[in-house]
Amino acid sequence: MSRFALPMYRHPDFSVPELRDAPVARFEPCQRDGVAPADYHATAIYPEYVQTARGKWILLRHSRMDCVIRKVNDTLEVVEFRRLKVGDLVAVGRRENGEDGIYVHTTGFASGGGESCETFAFRTSTSRETSFSIDYDTLYDILRHDRENGFILWVGGPAVIFDSDARKAFASLVDKGYVHGLLAGNALATHDLEGALYETALGQGIYSKKQASMGHYHHLDAINAIKGYGSIEQAVHQGGVRDGVMRAVVENKVDYVLAGSIRDDGPLPGVVGDVYAAQDCMRALARKATTVIAMATQLHTIATGNMTPSYQVLEDGSVRPVYFFIVDMSEFAAGKLADRGSLTAHAILTNVQDFIVNLNRALD
Amino acid sequence: MSRFALPMYRHPDFSVPELRDAPVARFEPCQRDGVAPADYHATAIYPEYVQTARGKWILLRHSRMDCVIRKVNDTLEVVEFRRLKVGDLVAVGRRENGEDGIYVHTTGFASGGGESCETFAFRTSTSRETSFSIDYDTLYDILRHDRENGFILWVGGPAVIFDSDARKAFASLVDKGYVHGLLAGNALATHDLEGALYETALGQGIYSKKQASMGHYHHLDAINAIKGYGSIEQAVHQGGVRDGVMRAVVENKVDYVLAGSIRDDGPLPGVVGDVYAAQDCMRALARKATTVIAMATQLHTIATGNMTPSYQVLEDGSVRPVYFFIVDMSEFAAGKLADRGSLTAHAILTNVQDFIVNLNRALD
Amino acid sequence: MSRFALPMYRHPDFSVPELRDAPVARFEPCQRDGVAPADYHATAIYPEYVQTARGKWILLRHSRMDCVIRKVNDTLEVVEFRRLKVGDLVAVGRRENGEDGIYVHTTGFASGGGESCETFAFRTSTSRETSFSIDYDTLYDILRHDRENGFILWVGGPAVIFDSDARKAFASLVDKGYVHGLLAGNALATHDLEGALYETALGQGIYSKKQASMGHYHHLDAINAIKGYGSIEQAVHQGGVRDGVMRAVVENKVDYVLAGSIRDDGPLPGVVGDVYAAQDCMRALARKATTVIAMATQLHTIATGNMTPSYQVLEDGSVRPVYFFIVDMSEFAAGKLADRGSLTAHAILTNVQDFIVNLNRALD
Amino acid sequence: MSRFALPMYRHPDFSVPELRDAPVARFEPCQRDGVAPADYHATAIYPEYVQTARGKWILLRHSRMDCVIRKVNDTLEVVEFRRLKVGDLVAVGRRENGEDGIYVHTTGFASGGGESCETFAFRTSTSRETSFSIDYDTLYDILRHDRENGFILWVGGPAVIFDSDARKAFASLVDKGYVHGLLAGNALATHDLEGALYETALGQGIYSKKQASMGHYHHLDAINAIKGYGSIEQAVHQGGVRDGVMRAVVENKVDYVLAGSIRDDGPLPGVVGDVYAAQDCMRALARKATTVIAMATQLHTIATGNMTPSYQVLEDGSVRPVYFFIVDMSEFAAGKLADRGSLTAHAILTNVQDFIVNLNRALD
Repeated sequence: MSRFALPMYRHPDFSVPELRDAPVARFEPCQRDGVAPADYHATAIYPEYVQTARGKWILLRHSRMDCVIRKVNDTLEVVEFRRLKVGDLVAVGRRENGEDGIYVHTTGFASGGGESCETFAFRTSTSRETSFSIDYDTLYDILRHDRENGFILWVGGPAVIFDSDARKAFASLVDKGYVHGLLAGNALATHDLEGALYETALGQGIYSKKQASMGHYHHLDAINAIKGYGSIEQAVHQGGVRDGVMRAVVENKVDYVLAGSIRDDGPLPGVVGDVYAAQDCMRALARKATTVIAMATQLHTIATGNMTPSYQVLEDGSVRPVYFFIVDMSEFAAGKLADRGSLTAHAILTNVQDFIVNLNRALD
Repeated sequence: MSRFALPMYRHPDFSVPELRDAPVARFEPCQRDGVAPADYHATAIYPEYVQTARGKWILLRHSRMDCVIRKVNDTLEVVEFRRLKVGDLVAVGRRENGEDGIYVHTTGFASGGGESCETFAFRTSTSRETSFSIDYDTLYDILRHDRENGFILWVGGPAVIFDSDARKAFASLVDKGYVHGLLAGNALATHDLEGALYETALGQGIYSKKQASMGHYHHLDAINAIKGYGSIEQAVHQGGVRDGVMRAVVENKVDYVLAGSIRDDGPLPGVVGDVYAAQDCMRALARKATTVIAMATQLHTIATGNMTPSYQVLEDGSVRPVYFFIVDMSEFAAGKLADRGSLTAHAILTNVQDFIVNLNRALD
Repeated sequence: MSRFALPMYRHPDFSVPELRDAPVARFEPCQRDGVAPADYHATAIYPEYVQTARGKWILLRHSRMDCVIRKVNDTLEVVEFRRLKVGDLVAVGRRENGEDGIYVHTTGFASGGGESCETFAFRTSTSRETSFSIDYDTLYDILRHDRENGFILWVGGPAVIFDSDARKAFASLVDKGYVHGLLAGNALATHDLEGALYETALGQGIYSKKQASMGHYHHLDAINAIKGYGSIEQAVHQGGVRDGVMRAVVENKVDYVLAGSIRDDGPLPGVVGDVYAAQDCMRALARKATTVIAMATQLHTIATGNMTPSYQVLEDGSVRPVYFFIVDMSEFAAGKLADRGSLTAHAILTNVQDFIVNLNRALD
Repeated sequence: MSRFALPMYRHPDFSVPELRDAPVARFEPCQRDGVAPADYHATAIYPEYVQTARGKWILLRHSRMDCVIRKVNDTLEVVEFRRLKVGDLVAVGRRENGEDGIYVHTTGFASGGGESCETFAFRTSTSRETSFSIDYDTLYDILRHDRENGFILWVGGPAVIFDSDARKAFASLVDKGYVHGLLAGNALATHDLEGALYETALGQGIYSKKQASMGHYHHLDAINAIKGYGSIEQAVHQGGVRDGVMRAVVENKVDYVLAGSIRDDGPLPGVVGDVYAAQDCMRALARKATTVIAMATQLHTIATGNMTPSYQVLEDGSVRPVYFFIVDMSEFAAGKLADRGSLTAHAILTNVQDFIVNLNRALD
């Protein structure tokens, strides 16, 4: 019986004078494809309310950072600039406290307690020396909750599968139902499949650490073999891939996106080569996410952070937070995400190998 | 008067028995698009010779790592797997000392001196504590040489233009003729253009470090503005962009590739959204490169490292080394490139801001 | 003509009710050597005022973090716990706004401008991607000012002298008068002297990077040689050491402390083996410091940060800030100092080699 | 039933001509305290044999890096330079293959297998992306073996006890008998005792991560309290310290050394303030060590690495390897130890919190 409960969300009080007397939001048409009208309003990660008619404040659904608000009939959509077409109606006005009919609600999940006002405290930032026991325990609680009652989205770099125990642990978490979506690149899949075929990653034993003879061919051979099957799914279904993360993902019918990058060899079948098409696929999962766990990749972590709001409006209209955990070895990488605006992210600074093994050990 | 001279290249001695008696290389046809025949030979970064007829050893041109050798009439091409078509003839055999008609020549530029055989020495790896004076001096010599006699290709992450002096220094190097090609992403260009329009990067003053009012709109506004012009080139030519790196690159007609990524906002006009198309554009420059300087980006550095050989065959048939310098703050990032096979890279561990200012100061 | 001027210091307004009506501070005697009385007051890095008689507020001189205030007749001293003797009178009471007769003044140097209150900004922390041009310019101004009008204290790890150009640059700054004190360990001095004797550091050429034959003996030989002279001073005066930082320090009669550590070989003559005696020597310099520049050492930087206040009371009674710059490659190291309470430190994230060469180039 | 067995040690073959015909080693007297005679021989981490009489090769016991060999009657001692006295006889000659009567045996534990001679392999260095499953398993085996049959020496920085679960895990390993010696500084003990008294480290909750009210006094209060008891031992025995690492160490009568540093507040009673006296205490434990585990401290790790040989001569005259594991978050820190000569060290790159929890979980 877990003590865990989601925090309550409090809607803004629209009866306060600033909001009660706020104007209705204005929308201007685009003059050119992909170009927003002057003074467009850009969305943040917080809940935003738009007053579309006197007293009617609409909470944006499926929001994300750095997009615009498009009005389609009575519906508001949060869309990337690149999707704008001539004539699209876009919300304008940048003030965030109702002055332009838009209210950004930063304290919806805040607990009542005030912050300390002492002159001084040591250790106010997060570093490798921060204590992480409570973060692990919190994460375990959230994952147990969201396995049944949410959508757990994982983001991973290849380091997740470079180690034998870590690779097994992640596959096990998929099998146990803790992975509802996976965002990764060609490399994670390639080296996971190399592991299934040769027990190596880039030619080095994932357990033994020995360099395999002609091991530098392994990743190319793995890609070539999967291409021969036609798809990763075919390779799994035909018995060509018997363990690992991609095996688990395919067998458990987990949604995944493999986004291409300029670093790729291959690529594997199924990798999305156009990065903006890949963004669309990723956001289709991100907009469902209630918890995101991003591990050992700056590229995919920042990309996902960009498209993940801090809240989720559930089907019953209730609002809950989206948890975002980052696992990385470096303060720089963890801090970079925070400095990009994903302020609500929790960082755990450790090697992803230990992290994923810990999770699998703690969760049934 | 510089003491600098390119090292001599020594071709292999094909009269030694192993090579004199080596078989002619074999080529097998592809059975399926994108899939290499069994036992295909993959290229490395070193000079490779293929014996296409008895005694006729052809040195591969425009080679790169992890590709295959395709025979088209009498020509040998080094191509990515994804470009293979049914029926293409691909070299097979993985042995590298002539046994399969292929010879990988790892010592063409080696000087005669032997290595020390003492039991022990401290400090054999490269770290932040390595002495870099000689690397700077060597690089200055190479750049002076290659400005007239080579193709200097730069690879950069956005950190190159986050600092006012660094951004000016890099633009100055472009103006002075030390930049023949530039590989970057949407972010470098976006923040450089944000700098030109607002003197900020992600809203923070690139000199003052002050947060601009509504500064978090600046990068979006910059993209929106450039889209309004239609292209970066139009923005420069119409006077909308008066300083910075992209201004210099456009005015000096430097070839550049902006490769898209899943992290992108926008993107700017001209960014290549398909990563494999972007790879093709990048390789078109990489195959001309005589010196590569890769700064503060793992993604673009590894991508470029993958497609850059250690040698260049000049028009007169002579062979010279391709110099590859990596500038990064972390041993991990520098080492990762080495661990990906780019063994000939020189790493300078420092902040790219100082690095680029140093270069501009040293070079007229 | 520099625009640089020290910021004005504003004393607290002791006429406000909280301070006007504050009690006189209490002092309790120590019952045991080295043990402070219950409820002792510990000092911070900020200016602190103690009301020793009605209306008489004394500003602490030579303060430092984590010490106690000892009353000796009418004088207040800031002393380490380990220096307390039975019967010493120590200030008690931990409240900082006058409630206990003690006032901690955190805003003496604050400019009037308020901080922005926008919901959001990117890039609020310091990282390798922060712009450092203005920090360099500010530091140049401060050093030019303090060469004549202050006490510039340098703290350095051995990385400062592992590179030929950096070692020369630091020695040059000493010769030019920008170094009034140096805090370092046995390693900096040992490898600097190794450089003078063999042009190596730990056996590797400080310019050539070549491993010297039997180079792993060099640091031991250097120590042995200096011991033969009797002292570093003797070695310099007798012509045994002709270049480098220790040569410059000795010839320019710069005060220095070489604090011993458990890592030391040797040690060199003059190294202070007892760390608490070393702390005393270090603090004798730190209490004079108007600017501190700490480079590439966590141990000595944190030690110095612990004993350096944020302000200095000059002989004429005026109060000025103490500038504290940290140069390091890692966000973790820079952040660690901040997390230890040295909140006013400026971090420049770069390789100390470039940093010191930049300084020497900019300063005549 | 573990598969683990110590590797066999093979003595050199002294019948080969170079050794059979080697001269007897020469010893020269010191002319001055602390100064070795010219051409002294410095020891390495490998087994070294000295021919003291024709055909009599003595294997050095209790060796360590960067010391000299002193002959006292018929005994050979490996001593630090600082311990030399006028008249002491010190071995001279730097050649390592018998030419000077000294033989450095680098391959005593080498298995027969040759290394691969392929042109190329990816991933030859150790980084955060290296697979560590096998290292954990190996370490578990060694610890199980050495609990009864060796001396397990731990070296730790304060990060080991900043986290609640990690602190408990380390204390548990002490209680289970896996810790025979502990080398640390004032900080580890201070913050561990702060944890026992206040459940904080530097004022931050070791589980809750909350800043305690007036928490920045906690470490000073802890030191003050322990000083009041007179010693850590007294504090434990009188019930003042009821959990944590120091409690476990004291109760289990584990030998420990707390070496002072210039960063220290306090210090705690029992901290050795003179670093060379501390080195002597540390080496008294290091010379018994059969396995060393050094966690999250550069200072103590390098100090210990300097004084730990790669082999141990057991009481029955047999020779076994000394295992040396380093746990750190940064490639730089791990590599630095290797670059200082401790070539046989195994690095595990992760957060020490996870590391120590893993060990405690795996070991009964």
